[in-house]
Order: sequence, then C-alpha cells, then structure tokens
Amino acid sequence: MSPRVPHPDPPVDRPLRSDAARNRERIIAAARRVYARDGLDASMASVAREAGVGIATLLRHFPAKADLVAAVFADRMDAYFEAVATALDNPDPWEAFTGYIEAACAMQAADYGFADVLTTTFPTAKALEQRRNEAYVAMVELINRAKATGRLREDFDPSDLVLIHMANAGVVNATGHAAPESWRRIVAMLIQSCEAPARGPLPPSPDHEALYRAMLRSSPADHATPAPDENA
Amino acid sequence: MSPRVPHPDPPVDRPLRSDAARNRERIIAAARRVYARDGLDASMASVAREAGVGIATLLRHFPAKADLVAAVFADRMDAYFEAVATALDNPDPWEAFTGYIEAACAMQAADYGFADVLTTTFPTAKALEQRRNEAYVAMVELINRAKATGRLREDFDPSDLVLIHMANAGVVNATGHAAPESWRRIVAMLIQSCEAPARGPLPPSPDHEALYRAMLRSSPADHATPAPDENA
Repeated sequence: MSPRVPHPDPPVDRPLRSDAARNRERIIAAARRVYARDGLDASMASVAREAGVGIATLLRHFPAKADLVAAVFADRMDAYFEAVATALDNPDPWEAFTGYIEAACAMQAADYGFADVLTTTFPTAKALEQRRNEAYVAMVELINRAKATGRLREDFDPSDLVLIHMANAGVVNATGHAAPESWRRIVAMLIQSCEAPARGPLPPSPDHEALYRAMLRSSPADHATPAPDENA
Repeated sequence: MSPRVPHPDPPVDRPLRSDAARNRERIIAAARRVYARDGLDASMASVAREAGVGIATLLRHFPAKADLVAAVFADRMDAYFEAVATALDNPDPWEAFTGYIEAACAMQAADYGFADVLTTTFPTAKALEQRRNEAYVAMVELINRAKATGRLREDFDPSDLVLIHMANAGVVNATGHAAPESWRRIVAMLIQSCEAPARGPLPPSPDHEALYRAMLRSSPADHATPAPDENA
C-alpha cells in the first residue's frame, strides 16, 4: 500500500485521456464484430457487453446509435464510395454498372451491419451521409452512361439501386452462414432484368421522398420492439 | 358483498376452461397484430404485453414461439396453399407462375410476420410445415408446366422461389409503411428475369440442404440478440 500523499498537481488528465481512447477503440472494435454478426438490430447493451465496458461508458463515447454506426462504418462507406469511383473508370459503361452492383452487394454479404447501413439513413451522422451522397451522384452518372450505350433499360431509376440493396440484404440476412453464396444468384437475376430491351413495363418507382422516409424508418431500432426479458 | 357460503361442488372447471379459451384467443389476436407490425422478431414478452396477460400465462398456452407462430399463421398458410392451388387451375402456365409469385409476395407485403414465415422453417410446428410441403409440391408442378411451355427459363430452380421471397421480405421490411408499394417493382424485375430465353447463365443455386438449414437459422430468434435493457 502506498502512502496517501496529497499531490499538488495530479497527472490525472493524461492517463484518463489514453484510457478513454483505449475504451473508444475497444467499443468500435466490439461494435464492428457485433454488427457484422447480428446486423444493426444489435442493441447498444450487447455492444457494451462485447466490449467489456459499462453501458454508461459506451454512451459517454457514443450518445446515440448513429454516432457509433458512423464511427464503425466510416471506412466501409469510404470503400463503397471507392467501388463507385472505380466503376466510373471502367471504359465499358455496362460492365461498370454491373460490376458496381456486384461489388456493392458483395460488401453487403460480407457484413450484415453494412447490408443495413446501405439502406438506412442516419441524418445526424453527417460525414457518413455526405459520403453516401457523393456515391449517389457518381451512381447517377454510372446509370446515365449505361443508358446512353443502350444496354441499360431506359426506365431504370436510381432508386432501383436502393431496392436492389434492400432485396440483397433480405437474402443475405435470411441465408446467413448456412448458404452464404445465395445472394449471387438473386443479384445476377436482378442484373439480367436491368438489361435492355426490357421484357415489359415495370410498376412505378417509389416516390423518392417516400423512399427516403423509408430509409429513415427502416432504421432497425424503429422496427424492432426491444424486449425487457426473453425472446423465446 | 355476497356472503361466503361454502359450496359442496364448486363449478370451477367450466369458468376456468372458458377463461383459458378467452386468454388463448386474446393471445393469438395480439400476436397477430404484433407480428404483422414488427415481424417475427417480436418477443414473446411484447406479445404478452399487447394481450394484457402475464408471460407465464402466455407460456402456459404456447410453451415455444413455434407453437404461437403456428396458431397465428395457420390460416395464412392455408391461404398461401390456396394461392398455389388456384394458380394450378390457370390454363396458361406462365400466367399461373407469375400470378402465383405476385399473389404470394402480396401476402408478404400485407403482413411482416408472414413475410418471415414464408422463409423460415419451424420443424416442431407439424401442421404448418405440412401445409408448406403441400404448397411446395404444387409449386414444383407449376414450375415444370411453365418450363414445358418454353416461357420459364430452363435453369429456374424451385429454390429460386425461396430466394425471391427472401428478397421481397427485405424490400417489404425496409420500405415499410413509408413506401409500401415498392415491392411490386422489385418483384416485377425478378419475374422478368425468369422469362426465357435467359439473358445469360446464373451462379449456381444454393444446395437445397444448405438452404433448408438457412431457413432454420433465419428464425429471427437465432439472429437477434435480445437486449436486457435499451436498444437506443
């Protein structure tokens, strides 16, 4: 036991700061594992458990789920933007279009959490949403180029990409680890349906405003009914 | 206040039995509402709350979630089987095939819970699974007839219907009430991709055994991590 001597200027700040930094990193790493395994449905409490910190500590670092999601998926969102940018470099616009869809859907298949992130909007996560918007602008360019060559059906709407990602998330989530390659087949079917000439007309695209609201609402926290006890 | 007179043969059984029957009906009606709104992720506890009964009462009537799911969705599963049977009566096999997909996907869109039921297997719910198997046999017949006319692509596999329902569930769940007609567009795209001649080959179908395991595993209770506290 060390004698308790009052210290005139306790070096308290430095260790606290590096403890805090370690905790922050530990929480992000834990959230990455939990979201990749369970999707964004995973609760803040289960992230805290995985990180081995108290819920209060977690909430001090990330007061809202959107803050944690933004921190965990910043690099994935960058990679997603890169996938679109790479596609724009492809001199064949149809290959660019289909290659982008395959790459982005593969990113969904690799991470349940990211599968949800691609179809959920977090308005308070400014940096994440800015990246998403940049990717969107590039995607519209990709779509216009593919249409100009006549390979992409004329009635393809940018919102169809969102629907494709929602459909892929459904397959990825439902087939899981038991049949992990299933998404490739449904995505290939969807890509084939995009090819001109179209086999027929399609029902109208959802209104973009409505789809945006859906992307807000589809935040799993809004859909799930957290249970205080069991989930038998 | 009535005088407390001991009764030689208290008529206890009858009222208890009808109380039990009332509770059972109330639980089923509550579960129907909760599953329709939140999908099968909804916990037993939230069904008990909606029904206004204790969790013990609920578990006395339905010891496992599969029992409750079977009771709630028996009539939907019958209606689903009827949709396949009706399609088999259609003299145009391609119309029969596409009409069935549209009808079954509309049933998913009308009920989040049923959207999950169609792609989740509950081995202990014998009656439900028997109905599903009967529908499956009829679907295979539907597929074979549509192929025989040359309108359905030759490489279409019965498991593709499961993938289509998983994809549709993804869109239905993600677009929710904000953009509730979105599923029609993605389902139309998927139907168009089924039409012969195929635009190209497809990646292989998932192994049927693996897909069955996925339908076991995709039981939401296995994916969700129930939180003892919040889900911020």
